[in-house]
Amino acid sequence: MIAFTGHGLDRADHIRADPARLAALRGGGAALLLRLDGLSPVYGDDHALQFTPLDAAEDGELVFLGLRDEVPLFVAVPGAGDMRPAYEQRAQWAALGLLPPAELALYGGARSLADWHARHRFCAKCGAGTVLAKGGWQRDCPACEAQHFPRTDPVAIMLVEHDGDLLLGRSARFPPRSYSALAGFVEPGESVEEAVAREVFEEAGVRVRDVRYIASQPWPFPSQLMLGCHAVADARDLVIDYTELEDARWFTRAEVAEALAKGADSTGFLAPPRYAIAHTLLEWWMEERA
Amino acid sequence: MIAFTGHGLDRADHIRADPARLAALRGGGAALLLRLDGLSPVYGDDHALQFTPLDAAEDGELVFLGLRDEVPLFVAVPGAGDMRPAYEQRAQWAALGLLPPAELALYGGARSLADWHARHRFCAKCGAGTVLAKGGWQRDCPACEAQHFPRTDPVAIMLVEHDGDLLLGRSARFPPRSYSALAGFVEPGESVEEAVAREVFEEAGVRVRDVRYIASQPWPFPSQLMLGCHAVADARDLVIDYTELEDARWFTRAEVAEALAKGADSTGFLAPPRYAIAHTLLEWWMEERA
Repeated sequence: MIAFTGHGLDRADHIRADPARLAALRGGGAALLLRLDGLSPVYGDDHALQFTPLDAAEDGELVFLGLRDEVPLFVAVPGAGDMRPAYEQRAQWAALGLLPPAELALYGGARSLADWHARHRFCAKCGAGTVLAKGGWQRDCPACEAQHFPRTDPVAIMLVEHDGDLLLGRSARFPPRSYSALAGFVEPGESVEEAVAREVFEEAGVRVRDVRYIASQPWPFPSQLMLGCHAVADARDLVIDYTELEDARWFTRAEVAEALAKGADSTGFLAPPRYAIAHTLLEWWMEERA
Repeated sequence: MIAFTGHGLDRADHIRADPARLAALRGGGAALLLRLDGLSPVYGDDHALQFTPLDAAEDGELVFLGLRDEVPLFVAVPGAGDMRPAYEQRAQWAALGLLPPAELALYGGARSLADWHARHRFCAKCGAGTVLAKGGWQRDCPACEAQHFPRTDPVAIMLVEHDGDLLLGRSARFPPRSYSALAGFVEPGESVEEAVAREVFEEAGVRVRDVRYIASQPWPFPSQLMLGCHAVADARDLVIDYTELEDARWFTRAEVAEALAKGADSTGFLAPPRYAIAHTLLEWWMEERA
């Protein structure tokens, strides 16, 4: 199971476009509101997400997340968003390991949507204030009639292999000894496969071929879609872009095996945490090459 | 070759962050400006894209596209963007068939970027006017210091197979007899694979399994990243969402073969055009199942 997937909700998109039905759900007494502290989850004693009955008088901006066992779930838009990457929110990040998988996925989607609304209260086309629409899956501009939709930013993240070794890198902001897969946003005008090749060359000076898609993951810091790939390098000389990376190097199969097996007790490098797709990719690679 | 890929540019991202170097490229006499009419390409007698020497006095917003054979290429931000889907711009769409593949890819990326700037002149966070930054790969808000980045919206597009037949659908706005792969935006909080399953169920009432990624394509109307997949259905009963589709049905292998082989002369359905990834997926499927 890939972390942040498997939310188990019926997103019930037909309800989003039906204001009368949405109002009935909001005021019907059965709806629940996901409790957040800013954008962080509020944990109960059972380490589960906390919900409170939705007050019918609630008049703030609400996002309709979908139905869970027929129960409508909403999240309120907070006062401010947060674009910081996950590794700069380590207390929250560590705490996420507490949530059961389906709840982590539910929280992730809710967080991305709530954050997007908080950071997009104005019309990018004309500057006027916008209003939440379609149950929170859209914002409308009353001034110029532009419609705006939540963002999902595709990111290519890749294992690069040469002669049985893997290329991994680290940002200066990573914890000591932590290395992970190289990654970068897919830009306008390129395919996922082209983005993989461009990023690896930009960050490490390595040309790759045979790019192969492995798996994907939604990543809510703030709203990436991670597209996990594998690629093959013909040579291992590195030209590291030190504005992006603090280091990058080739790791042997044994080093990767130790990092995965021993976690924080690894004497070599530290693998990315279990809820990052880079971890999934490393596990896939160990199995694929077994 | 997948259409809109293979731009052949060195995107030279290190130059984007270097204002002095960027200014030198702009004013150095070697730079070329891609000619657009609104967002449409201007064609020469040779059916190629047209470029003009960049006037050093040019003071409008310019996007640095990258280097082609060491020559810096730019595109100017037009007065207005255009969010209409490709099939509502059929004259332009048909004309795109004229461009050589690398030029089509170059145009696609330039169009997405120029369009994004034209539709994002204000800060979504505070409403103030924003300024182009990083050679057009960013916009900055002088008022609240928010940074904004060009959008790329991931879309899942899928061939659904049951017992050797394929599920295809048509929008009421498609030309008569045209059918294509079902598709929809990947939403916050879901993987590509989850988006495929959700979209097929929403649009056609069919449950799928074994979702498999096949290929991707940037699609510049206005800036999608098409993620082409294949999935397997266990049953063929359809519940069509007529707010999204005019029709959907199962097509036999022979019907798909005829549509691909005969193009506009097909007596059955009409396949999507060659530069749509749906066409690529159908060709892949015929080969894969051969």
